[in-house]
Amino acid sequence: MALARTVTLSNGLILAVEEQPWNPGVAMQLLLPVGAVTDPEGLEGAANLLEGWLWKGAGGRDARALAEAFDDLGVRRGSAAGLEYTTLGASFLAGQLEKVLALYADVLMRPALPEDAFETVRQVALQELASLEDQPPKKMFTALRRAVFESPHGRNPSGSLEGLQAATPEALRADFARRYGARGSILALAGGVSLERAQAAVEATLGLWQGGEVTVPAPVVSQPHTLRLEQHSAQVQIGLIYPDVSIGHPEFYTARLAAQVLSGGMGARLFVEVREKRGLVYSVYASPNGVKGYSYLSAYAGTTPERAEETLRVLRAEIERLAQGVSAEELERAKVGLRTMLVMQEESARSRAVSIARDLYLLGRVRSLEEIEAAIAAVDPERINRYLAKNPYRDPWTAILGPVDQIVASL
Amino acid sequence: MALARTVTLSNGLILAVEEQPWNPGVAMQLLLPVGAVTDPEGLEGAANLLEGWLWKGAGGRDARALAEAFDDLGVRRGSAAGLEYTTLGASFLAGQLEKVLALYADVLMRPALPEDAFETVRQVALQELASLEDQPPKKMFTALRRAVFESPHGRNPSGSLEGLQAATPEALRADFARRYGARGSILALAGGVSLERAQAAVEATLGLWQGGEVTVPAPVVSQPHTLRLEQHSAQVQIGLIYPDVSIGHPEFYTARLAAQVLSGGMGARLFVEVREKRGLVYSVYASPNGVKGYSYLSAYAGTTPERAEETLRVLRAEIERLAQGVSAEELERAKVGLRTMLVMQEESARSRAVSIARDLYLLGRVRSLEEIEAAIAAVDPERINRYLAKNPYRDPWTAILGPVDQIVASL
Repeated sequence: MALARTVTLSNGLILAVEEQPWNPGVAMQLLLPVGAVTDPEGLEGAANLLEGWLWKGAGGRDARALAEAFDDLGVRRGSAAGLEYTTLGASFLAGQLEKVLALYADVLMRPALPEDAFETVRQVALQELASLEDQPPKKMFTALRRAVFESPHGRNPSGSLEGLQAATPEALRADFARRYGARGSILALAGGVSLERAQAAVEATLGLWQGGEVTVPAPVVSQPHTLRLEQHSAQVQIGLIYPDVSIGHPEFYTARLAAQVLSGGMGARLFVEVREKRGLVYSVYASPNGVKGYSYLSAYAGTTPERAEETLRVLRAEIERLAQGVSAEELERAKVGLRTMLVMQEESARSRAVSIARDLYLLGRVRSLEEIEAAIAAVDPERINRYLAKNPYRDPWTAILGPVDQIVASL
Repeated sequence: MALARTVTLSNGLILAVEEQPWNPGVAMQLLLPVGAVTDPEGLEGAANLLEGWLWKGAGGRDARALAEAFDDLGVRRGSAAGLEYTTLGASFLAGQLEKVLALYADVLMRPALPEDAFETVRQVALQELASLEDQPPKKMFTALRRAVFESPHGRNPSGSLEGLQAATPEALRADFARRYGARGSILALAGGVSLERAQAAVEATLGLWQGGEVTVPAPVVSQPHTLRLEQHSAQVQIGLIYPDVSIGHPEFYTARLAAQVLSGGMGARLFVEVREKRGLVYSVYASPNGVKGYSYLSAYAGTTPERAEETLRVLRAEIERLAQGVSAEELERAKVGLRTMLVMQEESARSRAVSIARDLYLLGRVRSLEEIEAAIAAVDPERINRYLAKNPYRDPWTAILGPVDQIVASL
């Protein structure tokens, strides 16, 4: 199994390469620490707007010529500004690496950020914000995260109506100069390319990129409480957030395996108890989640108003019952499931590039598969049950979104 | 590049294997020709219910023991009943192949289909149907396909309220006996396994599986028309369906490249004209689609009520402007984009297994990458422009879903 090798260039950019010699393609993930958490106060959505504006021309090309230049190289790409960072992802044939990096260097170092395209960028962001209204599960979790975090970690990554409306080209150009830069940025490559070739190509294109690195506020959470959100919808969306241990914590994989017992397969507790035995929902899951410095376990169920109370009750009971322990068979199954998932992910260059960039952002290093496997193997029934008894999941933040007035008051 | 090898077993089951010697995992896609199109009249949703009921026990195991048996082997699986077929998909480590196939043989040949689990299966299906109400884009396309097809191809793959309510254990057991079987079913494997080993394992487990093959009605379409669907939502969902050529048609790749010019990258016409220049939408795309025997190009845009009219006008204008031809540069870019996508897909065992099964279902054989590349290379500007002039996209079926009374009457 290949292992990512990492170097830090003189401008502070971190480059990581995982070579897959059999692979004719390369997946790239560039992670820039530019997200909603560091949006200027009153300019919520600035990272989102910048990410859209970035593609409106670079290196002397207008927007169309820039897009066509990427398409000419056969680059499949996606980019997004999120809560903590902006990612520019791409997949292409390995032979195109140098040309592709030269284009990204134009985007990062020589963007046009043209005045006349600014208004359409804002309109697209406003459309994105409006579309949230028609996605009840996403709307519910957006409101729930806002309730959990008192720090900017509760912001909507898309921005706020006020912030998007207040933004001006001048303010965003200043923000671009402040936040976009080599320091703190991570470039991960996985596929048919060596570190040596990649480093030469990156130094030739992004070697003179400067700046970057802004201070990220520490996460601060509220006291757990319940949100009831009225929405004209057919289903009731239920979301729970429980505090959890972060990556890097000695019991991180213990908690990860507990989440797997809850929701790691079709024999896992939530699927069996909430869906298969009682038919309460079409969709139910729990998943480990979080931001740098604060992790949580989130759980979701969507159901009809008349079954909402029972669904919430069973969902909470199953999660909180973990404190009573898991069986040796459940733990074994969770280990097999987690290990298979890891091995399968190794296969895809895309998911490797994403994992490598995320590991470097959260941990400052890349975990090897062997390291993760050893940590998983070291969790035995006694250890997980002692951990769960001492660290019970309870007292969650709760959100209920839907035709709330149809739901009994006990929710 | 590996090529799938195919054999037909004596019971009619088609087995296809694409060997990827470097891959520690295997992806499996089992395609059964059991879908909404062959649901019995009055029992719409039967394929969907059967797919859910299937997992409630098999080979002497109850539902929980069956799910745990899969989890014990580290099988990541998903299954779904669709419009034309049911798919059972799985990923696992190559060493587990024989045991995994033995479990699937239990599911297909010795399912419990227990009476006492039937009601929860129905409840989950009803929850799924209810959740459609909260997914406006999906709801719109479901209604639009129903308007396009006069044959059962317009059915909702999830079923109808009446059909789900009318279903009984007896009727579904009879339907299972009629539709589930080896003949007409396709088992595709991609990953670290040889055809020889796979064939031995399949013969040992599924060799005695019998039955299958029901007659599928031919697709019949209506005259193109417009649907206006009132929905309390923030956005207006716009959908278009244009007739197109099917896979197997000599100009299939010509039409595929035209769709790529429209929507194949961020420099493609729809993204540039509808989103990037005018900021009308957050999301817009066109994609080739269809059922066996009838293909179409579908297009989507979601926007605010006040911009719906302009969005529909620009969307249609861009699609119908294809008849005036594409430039040599656009064609070249479309070719590069399509080729890169194909090569990237080759890398993933999961997407290969899905493609192989789908090719065998639609074409009766697996297209090699070389064959597809040669067909794409053979399309030159003269050919595509002659084709588009003679086969213009025009006169679509149209659906508009949203706060219709806020939209001007000209839509």
